[in-house]
Amino acid sequence: MDDKTLLDTSGLTAALQRFADERDWNRHHSPRNLMLALVGEVGELAEIFQWLDDDAAMRLRDDPARFTHLQEEIADVLLYLTRLAMVTGVDLNQAVRDKMVKNAIKYPVP
Amino acid sequence: MDDKTLLDTSGLTAALQRFADERDWNRHHSPRNLMLALVGEVGELAEIFQWLDDDAAMRLRDDPARFTHLQEEIADVLLYLTRLAMVTGVDLNQAVRDKMVKNAIKYPVP
Amino acid sequence: MDDKTLLDTSGLTAALQRFADERDWNRHHSPRNLMLALVGEVGELAEIFQWLDDDAAMRLRDDPARFTHLQEEIADVLLYLTRLAMVTGVDLNQAVRDKMVKNAIKYPVP
Amino acid sequence: MDDKTLLDTSGLTAALQRFADERDWNRHHSPRNLMLALVGEVGELAEIFQWLDDDAAMRLRDDPARFTHLQEEIADVLLYLTRLAMVTGVDLNQAVRDKMVKNAIKYPVP
Repeated sequence: MDDKTLLDTSGLTAALQRFADERDWNRHHSPRNLMLALVGEVGELAEIFQWLDDDAAMRLRDDPARFTHLQEEIADVLLYLTRLAMVTGVDLNQAVRDKMVKNAIKYPVP
Repeated sequence: MDDKTLLDTSGLTAALQRFADERDWNRHHSPRNLMLALVGEVGELAEIFQWLDDDAAMRLRDDPARFTHLQEEIADVLLYLTRLAMVTGVDLNQAVRDKMVKNAIKYPVP
Repeated sequence: MDDKTLLDTSGLTAALQRFADERDWNRHHSPRNLMLALVGEVGELAEIFQWLDDDAAMRLRDDPARFTHLQEEIADVLLYLTRLAMVTGVDLNQAVRDKMVKNAIKYPVP
Repeated sequence: MDDKTLLDTSGLTAALQRFADERDWNRHHSPRNLMLALVGEVGELAEIFQWLDDDAAMRLRDDPARFTHLQEEIADVLLYLTRLAMVTGVDLNQAVRDKMVKNAIKYPVP
């Protein structure tokens, strides 16, 4: 299995770069700006779960408006994380693959 | 462009499911547990940047030990985010695609 | 210096307890709910700083609307943190004092 | 009730300023650095709760080592939050009092 068989973000990174280029946003996308923006989105994601018990958290799909909101916040976290990887020079596909290998060694199958 | 041309997490979601199954971890992976674990990893990622100025944050690649740490923390955030999407029933590829479309409408090219 | 000379949250903890009692909110204030709510507020606080350079971040006082927003988000983080300490049985004043002592040992004056 | 009857952080802010002065740390304590450091500590706090059910989260006091860890992480969040308020010019006592008044209006006693 090569890196992209596990995860392929190449289309997304190209689309995000084009999106930033077209809007002249690269100058705003410093690592620390993106890090803080990521934290903002993680906060919005956490708010979805804050007053739910575990059962209700599992049944968000049953409420279309909240489920759409959940989808959007999860996507926002991924978008900023991908962008943070891009500007710091991290190959997200390889990073994920390397971490999966490391986790498999750290937590062997019992 | 279909969803998986933008982003393809299908190999990763299969690998993460197998990883959890083999270790009997599914019972620990409630949405709220995964949300808190995600916050923990975001905190570790933020710590990398906390005392750096913008220039130093852009040059993490020049320090192999710190860059490996950066790669691992970015990967950890992605792994928990993917797992959170899985257990809440969110199709990450479609969610990202939908959000990119929404962002393109919200922020038209000037 | 006793604990309350350093920090005195006794009025606040009494006010927060009364506030929760009067609204029947204690049943919502589990540690994990409060932790997630705290993350939500930290996200809102981070958003204030996400696109600012360090100079602009220092001059938030010059913009009354944004400064009021900053005051509110900082307060929200403190309120949930205090409440989290309360429900887990942590004496915030003593915890802060103990940590200050520990920090003074860990980071001696050069 | 005046501001300091609700919350009195005056001793703590003085101690934190002296601590930073003695170690020449003020130059590191920009708002954004402190914000990221705060996120790091919130992440460490979240990790304490990530695999616990609500019952176990309520019983952290029964485990002295984990309870000490909880106390320290709660204190760390408060210390960075107080320092962030200091460098941005926010009066924490007044901010908390104003927010309590606002919350009482927003959520009237039923």
